[in-house]
Amino acid sequence: MASTWTRQHILSLADWTAAEYESLLQTASSFREVLSRRTKKVPALQGQVVTNLFFEPSTRTRSSFELAAKRLSADVLNFAPGSSSLTKGETILDTAKTYLAMGTDIFVIRHQQAGVCHAIADEMDRLQSGVSILNAGDGQHEHPSQALLDLFTLCCLLDDENPRLELLQGKKIAIVGDILHSRVARSNIWSLTAAGADVHLVGPPTLLPQLFAGLANSSHRGQLFLHWKLEPAIQDADFVMTLRLQRERMTNHLLPSLREYHLRYGITRERLKLCQPFVKVLHPGPVNRGVEISSDLMDDPVVSLISQQVTSGVAVRMALLYLIGTLKAEV
Amino acid sequence: MASTWTRQHILSLADWTAAEYESLLQTASSFREVLSRRTKKVPALQGQVVTNLFFEPSTRTRSSFELAAKRLSADVLNFAPGSSSLTKGETILDTAKTYLAMGTDIFVIRHQQAGVCHAIADEMDRLQSGVSILNAGDGQHEHPSQALLDLFTLCCLLDDENPRLELLQGKKIAIVGDILHSRVARSNIWSLTAAGADVHLVGPPTLLPQLFAGLANSSHRGQLFLHWKLEPAIQDADFVMTLRLQRERMTNHLLPSLREYHLRYGITRERLKLCQPFVKVLHPGPVNRGVEISSDLMDDPVVSLISQQVTSGVAVRMALLYLIGTLKAEV
Amino acid sequence: MASTWTRQHILSLADWTAAEYESLLQTASSFREVLSRRTKKVPALQGQVVTNLFFEPSTRTRSSFELAAKRLSADVLNFAPGSSSLTKGETILDTAKTYLAMGTDIFVIRHQQAGVCHAIADEMDRLQSGVSILNAGDGQHEHPSQALLDLFTLCCLLDDENPRLELLQGKKIAIVGDILHSRVARSNIWSLTAAGADVHLVGPPTLLPQLFAGLANSSHRGQLFLHWKLEPAIQDADFVMTLRLQRERMTNHLLPSLREYHLRYGITRERLKLCQPFVKVLHPGPVNRGVEISSDLMDDPVVSLISQQVTSGVAVRMALLYLIGTLKAEV
Repeated sequence: MASTWTRQHILSLADWTAAEYESLLQTASSFREVLSRRTKKVPALQGQVVTNLFFEPSTRTRSSFELAAKRLSADVLNFAPGSSSLTKGETILDTAKTYLAMGTDIFVIRHQQAGVCHAIADEMDRLQSGVSILNAGDGQHEHPSQALLDLFTLCCLLDDENPRLELLQGKKIAIVGDILHSRVARSNIWSLTAAGADVHLVGPPTLLPQLFAGLANSSHRGQLFLHWKLEPAIQDADFVMTLRLQRERMTNHLLPSLREYHLRYGITRERLKLCQPFVKVLHPGPVNRGVEISSDLMDDPVVSLISQQVTSGVAVRMALLYLIGTLKAEV
Repeated sequence: MASTWTRQHILSLADWTAAEYESLLQTASSFREVLSRRTKKVPALQGQVVTNLFFEPSTRTRSSFELAAKRLSADVLNFAPGSSSLTKGETILDTAKTYLAMGTDIFVIRHQQAGVCHAIADEMDRLQSGVSILNAGDGQHEHPSQALLDLFTLCCLLDDENPRLELLQGKKIAIVGDILHSRVARSNIWSLTAAGADVHLVGPPTLLPQLFAGLANSSHRGQLFLHWKLEPAIQDADFVMTLRLQRERMTNHLLPSLREYHLRYGITRERLKLCQPFVKVLHPGPVNRGVEISSDLMDDPVVSLISQQVTSGVAVRMALLYLIGTLKAEV
Repeated sequence: MASTWTRQHILSLADWTAAEYESLLQTASSFREVLSRRTKKVPALQGQVVTNLFFEPSTRTRSSFELAAKRLSADVLNFAPGSSSLTKGETILDTAKTYLAMGTDIFVIRHQQAGVCHAIADEMDRLQSGVSILNAGDGQHEHPSQALLDLFTLCCLLDDENPRLELLQGKKIAIVGDILHSRVARSNIWSLTAAGADVHLVGPPTLLPQLFAGLANSSHRGQLFLHWKLEPAIQDADFVMTLRLQRERMTNHLLPSLREYHLRYGITRERLKLCQPFVKVLHPGPVNRGVEISSDLMDDPVVSLISQQVTSGVAVRMALLYLIGTLKAEV
């Protein structure tokens, strides 16, 4: 399975090749099959240690990685920020080095600052440790596993048996909301345009600066478009991805009110009539019901892919841990 | 083992049948035997995921369920309220649905509000998810696993080899203390009267309103009695169950002082002379020593069943998880 | 492996015999070999329950014990102080007895008060429970597993194949810093002088009272020396162990400032020139970089043993859990 994999750290999707995306999709697909069995475990990472270093609180992402690691039979250590050495003045790099010395094989790291994962990966490489770093969200920078589970969800929807990149070629995908602060949007821009989809970003000007137009990777087949009004962005869209709105943006005067946001950018059944007939809606969660998306739409299993995204998350994270975990074994 | 089990959710004991109690007692008894072996694990729930959603802090109950699940070889996810998506505005139902989508098979749920477990169970059924909900304490409503471990403890005491419901027929059991706020008392009223025991509730009038007289299930053989004075309640009792006194009741003016409570309702060696010669004392824990019960009595292994209750808890929770977990497999 | 082991609790190193140290070193050495394999697990404690009762927050020590227990295939329960029954008024002994009744085989306990581990061990013995207590740090009293991992680290450095006590005979070891408040220093004094090393304590007079001179065990071959100036303490030293400086000491007026502390007692490359040519530096972590030790020195793999200490920690804790865990089986 995917014996050609060579990437050690999963930090960003900016430079992923089409072959890497295909390996990931294939591997996740085979794990999805494992998850449908009665006994959902494989011994692939038995005896290996996966350490979750979550400096920023998170429930769903940490649980998803923890379950993925356990189903690969790895041992899991959870670093709890509240009761940590950090309150005792230790640096983040020293915390990581301590867990390295205990025997960690893979670090899953979330931090409120962009670049922390890169810094830890650099240090681990400098020490020739051989361990892998998996970015589970660093500041406003990237959240690769979220974008990969979105990709997997979409490809499976288009061909359940054989999810692959080309299925998204020429599709129109709108990403709606607070683009500026979203690591989910940044990672999705890379993966979706790599698959050949056209990505239409839309949000209020305070949350979608013009500079995003420059993000596109010119070697990608898909193109990037910016909108400040919702309608042209979702017109004829195949998929609409709404982003979580952080309530604290309001106190920073970047948004007038939740109600006004919903009126202008909220996804409703009425608005989806602009899209393709079989349009589907995605959201990385957790959702503010009635803000990013109307409550009835969120619960409509025909339109909403939210549950599938969460389910895909376990298979995709198993695939990522498997690919980088068995890479180490081969070295 | 108990192949006739059909109940999917454990929310309340109000409508449990005698046959269900007997299945539970038998299954717990066989797991108690497993726990006496050197290797205390069975593979019954291998690959299944038990998710503890504890919205209210708890140590002993969560640990007991966690250990029970691990000994059945399940994978356990713990939802930590402090670092959760709830602080991000997600609804409780959406949190549960997220863990469902990750692959949860059984939810163990504690919440400070009565009815939350029912609401989640209804939603899970509506989604035809097939998962089970186990109420680990919802507000002042019910705490079924606590009442079942009390029942198991008492039946084992009366016949260690063959614990069964009829052993409690005609016994007098006093439940002492803050009945009003106690989910433990409510669940015990159902199970003990179903077993044919007479249950005598006693506490200060502010904590034992008259309306409790109406709680009795008329089809149960055991009867329910209310007392505001301790003596008639424990006179000739076979068992005395004291309830934990929440210190915050005092600030609400429902109680004058801990000292006065102990003087009027505290269980002491002297007072137990009113009871049957071999009377035993139970307490769900954690105990306020010298308040609900005198400290020396609590530590007297001849009188106190407190440790046996905790030990029974693991076997009873293994039995509950096993019964609902293997039910799913057969469906 | 080490079938002559008879000690049930690991509370203090004050009365350890040479034979016990040798058993520990040998057992840890064999587990270090296990940890170098691809599958790093052994089934030694399968079905046993190791409960971490950490009343004081800790990341590294708890994770190290948790990983050690998992690699011996034990089930691990973690007691979280924040969400605990302690806030509900339960005594520490009652908390321990609750976890005993659930089926705990080994308790790993950290508490801010000296003597708590002894008190729990006494109670467990009184109850003839057969369980073991492992002190993971009690107030300013002892931290045996830390001193044993320091010992193992030093002995392995001197003979990687066959780490044994006599290797430290006649070595000079300086322990620098806040001796008064350090449980690490106290435990190390016992183990290092038992090995025949001479231990030179050094720190400011407020943090190193004269009474420490009386700590030495006269039957030990190594001797204890006190210094208030750094230079004579580290002159010709083979090893320098710096202790963590608690920042809260400053607010208590025991220390003028971090900067002044570093100027007088900080370990720097310049100062190490006073020591033996191949001197090594130890620190129990977490480190305040630039306070106890200069930042460049800490990262110098030729001089610093800090990573090896952490790695040794897992093997030494596996050895301790194994020795007391299999003892129980044989009883």
